[in-house]
Amino acid sequence: MIQSVDRAVRILFALQGARRMTLSELAAELELAPTTVHGIVRTLAAHGVVVQERDGGRYRLGPAVLRFGNVYLDSLDLRARSLAWAHELARQSGLAVRVGVLLGGEVVVIHHEPRPDGSRQMPEIGAEIPAHASALGKAMLAFGGLPETLELRSMTGATLTSRDALDEQLAATRDSGIAYECDEAVLGESGVAGAIFDRTGIAGAVAVVLPTLDWPASDAVVDMVRTTARTISRELGATQWPGAAAST
Amino acid sequence: MIQSVDRAVRILFALQGARRMTLSELAAELELAPTTVHGIVRTLAAHGVVVQERDGGRYRLGPAVLRFGNVYLDSLDLRARSLAWAHELARQSGLAVRVGVLLGGEVVVIHHEPRPDGSRQMPEIGAEIPAHASALGKAMLAFGGLPETLELRSMTGATLTSRDALDEQLAATRDSGIAYECDEAVLGESGVAGAIFDRTGIAGAVAVVLPTLDWPASDAVVDMVRTTARTISRELGATQWPGAAAST
Repeated sequence: MIQSVDRAVRILFALQGARRMTLSELAAELELAPTTVHGIVRTLAAHGVVVQERDGGRYRLGPAVLRFGNVYLDSLDLRARSLAWAHELARQSGLAVRVGVLLGGEVVVIHHEPRPDGSRQMPEIGAEIPAHASALGKAMLAFGGLPETLELRSMTGATLTSRDALDEQLAATRDSGIAYECDEAVLGESGVAGAIFDRTGIAGAVAVVLPTLDWPASDAVVDMVRTTARTISRELGATQWPGAAAST
Repeated sequence: MIQSVDRAVRILFALQGARRMTLSELAAELELAPTTVHGIVRTLAAHGVVVQERDGGRYRLGPAVLRFGNVYLDSLDLRARSLAWAHELARQSGLAVRVGVLLGGEVVVIHHEPRPDGSRQMPEIGAEIPAHASALGKAMLAFGGLPETLELRSMTGATLTSRDALDEQLAATRDSGIAYECDEAVLGESGVAGAIFDRTGIAGAVAVVLPTLDWPASDAVVDMVRTTARTISRELGATQWPGAAAST
């Protein structure tokens, strides 16, 4: 770990969260001396990664970061392979579809297919959801990447906050490739996710989002999710999928 | 300048350009020892800013950068204040409209309003255009930020590659607030830009893009650009605009 690079990244995350921060706010947030922070932000500013506002002197992210997110998405095979199948899953199920990857203990949504009912829905690309509280997250945690120290913070009364309860669900997901969530991240919202693999292991997950009023999902919907996850996995070069023998 | 932070940023730019790179490709690109690069990419990877592909070991940008660009745009007063006026300028002129900021010697497009004729057009947000070859760039360079060592590289036969010729145009722009470009970045494409100021100085520029077939722009179109640039400047707190007395 290169200390100053680590600090630079934490400065970028702080600016992402707060939008605009003074040097002293950044120093307080990172628990560092202002002179230390100053050297780092000057270096980031020299490249346009952050900018200092002439009016007030606060720092914010700069124009050099503008294309990072699109380049990330464009370089992600998972996304390229998922687009058509996620669209088809939304069409067949009549539900919103999300595709996600794991980032530490969080799911990052990398594709969102709105419910095909024409209602206006917020784009969700880049949204982060605690992994233990989401079907997408559980589908991925079951197959690796479960941080030893994952904090099971409570989002709703229904969030799993016991490691034993989570482990039990993850064991079931390891058998079936499918994970569930009911009101655990957002009240009124539930989901069914399928794990997506590439030739080296877990690569992501795809989920339908359904209103908890329609919970539990029908077997037909679970089958659609399974088929979608298996199909994307096959396109990514995976040679096996959990429970494949039983569900073929 | 903190050396390791500078190197980390150059690694991110290299990955933005090449999408996927091995450690040795990164080391060659940065002219550094692979062990030096390795320490930096491991630190970036620990935060999800880059990821290493399990299949082949190449590095690419990671999910943690996904929202940087949107956060940059959301925190930019210039963009918030420009949206409605850029739309109105496109509607009045029948032309595509771009809003840009300066990043070194490049213009970064931060808003794009398509030609209102319903034709399909590529989104251009994040596109970079050499500042000396674009109306947007000249409108900003005239009022500061002209790098001493700006390389006037030739894009088309019409690109200004002499510093004297550029300086002459910038002097005219300092008087009028308006800059022009004809075939200088892309053959067949020309533009008229107006400088945008906030209370501290130059903040950006707004331009109409017109087919060179329709060059030169009519006085009416130039007036629309001027009015738009002045209006956005006023909303950003600018108290003056070049040539304002003459054109009011």
